[in-house]
Amino acid sequence: MSELYAGVDLGGTSIKCIFANLDGSIALHRRIPTDSHAGPQDVLDRIADMVQKMAEELGREPTSLGMGVPGLVDFRHGITRFLPNLTTHWIDIPAAEILSNALGCPVRLLNDVRTATLGELTYGRGREASTMVFIAIGTGIGGGVVIDGKLRLGPLGAAGELGHQTIDPNGPMCGCGNHGCLETLASGTALAAEGIRLMLMGLAPHLHELVEGDPARVTAELMSQAAEHDEPVLDAIHCAADDIGTAVANVMVTLHPDLVILGGGVAKIGDVLFDRVRNQVRRRVRMISPDTVRIEPSDLGSDAGVLGAIALAARGLE
Amino acid sequence: MSELYAGVDLGGTSIKCIFANLDGSIALHRRIPTDSHAGPQDVLDRIADMVQKMAEELGREPTSLGMGVPGLVDFRHGITRFLPNLTTHWIDIPAAEILSNALGCPVRLLNDVRTATLGELTYGRGREASTMVFIAIGTGIGGGVVIDGKLRLGPLGAAGELGHQTIDPNGPMCGCGNHGCLETLASGTALAAEGIRLMLMGLAPHLHELVEGDPARVTAELMSQAAEHDEPVLDAIHCAADDIGTAVANVMVTLHPDLVILGGGVAKIGDVLFDRVRNQVRRRVRMISPDTVRIEPSDLGSDAGVLGAIALAARGLE
Repeated sequence: MSELYAGVDLGGTSIKCIFANLDGSIALHRRIPTDSHAGPQDVLDRIADMVQKMAEELGREPTSLGMGVPGLVDFRHGITRFLPNLTTHWIDIPAAEILSNALGCPVRLLNDVRTATLGELTYGRGREASTMVFIAIGTGIGGGVVIDGKLRLGPLGAAGELGHQTIDPNGPMCGCGNHGCLETLASGTALAAEGIRLMLMGLAPHLHELVEGDPARVTAELMSQAAEHDEPVLDAIHCAADDIGTAVANVMVTLHPDLVILGGGVAKIGDVLFDRVRNQVRRRVRMISPDTVRIEPSDLGSDAGVLGAIALAARGLE
Repeated sequence: MSELYAGVDLGGTSIKCIFANLDGSIALHRRIPTDSHAGPQDVLDRIADMVQKMAEELGREPTSLGMGVPGLVDFRHGITRFLPNLTTHWIDIPAAEILSNALGCPVRLLNDVRTATLGELTYGRGREASTMVFIAIGTGIGGGVVIDGKLRLGPLGAAGELGHQTIDPNGPMCGCGNHGCLETLASGTALAAEGIRLMLMGLAPHLHELVEGDPARVTAELMSQAAEHDEPVLDAIHCAADDIGTAVANVMVTLHPDLVILGGGVAKIGDVLFDRVRNQVRRRVRMISPDTVRIEPSDLGSDAGVLGAIALAARGLE
């Protein structure tokens, strides 16, 4: 019987956990709300509790556990450095040690998008790639860089922060403090904000209908639906895709990867987005043939994170 | 007696050659004009001739030869693919084989800035770096990326083309066909063009005096002198430095290197440029402490190319 590992994806709103073999076949799947208000110890207690209950249900303990977390971590020591989307920001919490003590197995932590990159590399389209870039375009924009089959972390685990490339030097302010980061132009949040603006200005009647005039309900997905009728909404999607294309082009001239995977909610817009991204890359990359780099959607979707956590648990970053 | 290698730097205007040991001590230095009008065979004949004469003078044959060339090469097969600054562009010339047959020793070819990057890595400031980026800011802007001590080439030898990052999406047209590449904004050519504009508009009286009103004589170096008196010229240098800083910031969030070396004629402007580049990086990079990345001038200067060619000859890209 092959070893069983636990993979956790700690998100701002929910925590997902799976038990799986190294080959990626999932034995059990659970999800609980994050509810981070009571602080890190409470969240970690509930994760340990969930893992223990899953182990009881399967009648088997996990050999080790991997966990992706939303922010910067010290991978070597398993300490969270800054998780901006969780209450108290988890500054310097030895989360790996706390979980390891509670569960009696080794625990490894990594940034969530870098973990998902490991998932894409091990179980997704990345299996056939040597050098690969993953960009997760959701509420924010994160990324991961794989070079010659190895995830590139840098000394602080911060390599791959592709959402914080400057795309428009005089562009809007970013949560990070810079101006004109890709994240300010093409994240789900940026896209929704533009959708809301169009709606409020009376330029998106179909979107208005879809969300019943409620700005809080505007999402990239609904904009994608509305774009069939609302030309300005389609234009907003095209603008975001152009900026994503510029970012992809910049990574291509820097690293010439063989594969770029776009994931996250915004990538679910599909062909309308991907066609435009690929066209922009073709316009911008002239030094090498853009056909040498595939630009593809994730085929793991939202499971990339937990599956990457399984790879992290089983093999670390060897 | 340690092995002796030949290192050649093939440029648009001159060809430099050295004989040196692997430790980088130079036994002999020569330079001839490139004069590429008679075509590749003529240029290669004259290189072989120069190398043979140097060998006779030293009474020793080189063990192998490395050569940096200005453009794209197929490193594995030693074939030039496209050298835009040389007559006939050297499309698909098996230069390594031609030189190897003439000289009776192994020959390796690499892009010139990637070769200089190897020089910086082996003999320059890069000796103490693990992950390093070199940006050569001259007539054009080239680059090289070293990851975990290894020069990153990509399948076509085109990784590291950092001058073709898009910095201003709606910026001026580039020689590569894209718009707003770093090269269009901050190369020596771009800087001189802006200096000429300022002079013609009467905004750079000191520069006008220095070049006696002759646009053909405007260079980044003279602009650096004029900037002490001509405020608009200083502003032009600052703008170029800001764009270089943005490009460096983008590479930092992508790879988090420990060292960025700026070389080429524009980098010789010195502190006025470097201070501004470092400030821009501090403004743009918020995800990691910019103090974790050194941004330094080359200490090999224009010898980085020939020295890198020695490393290339002796060790290849191991």
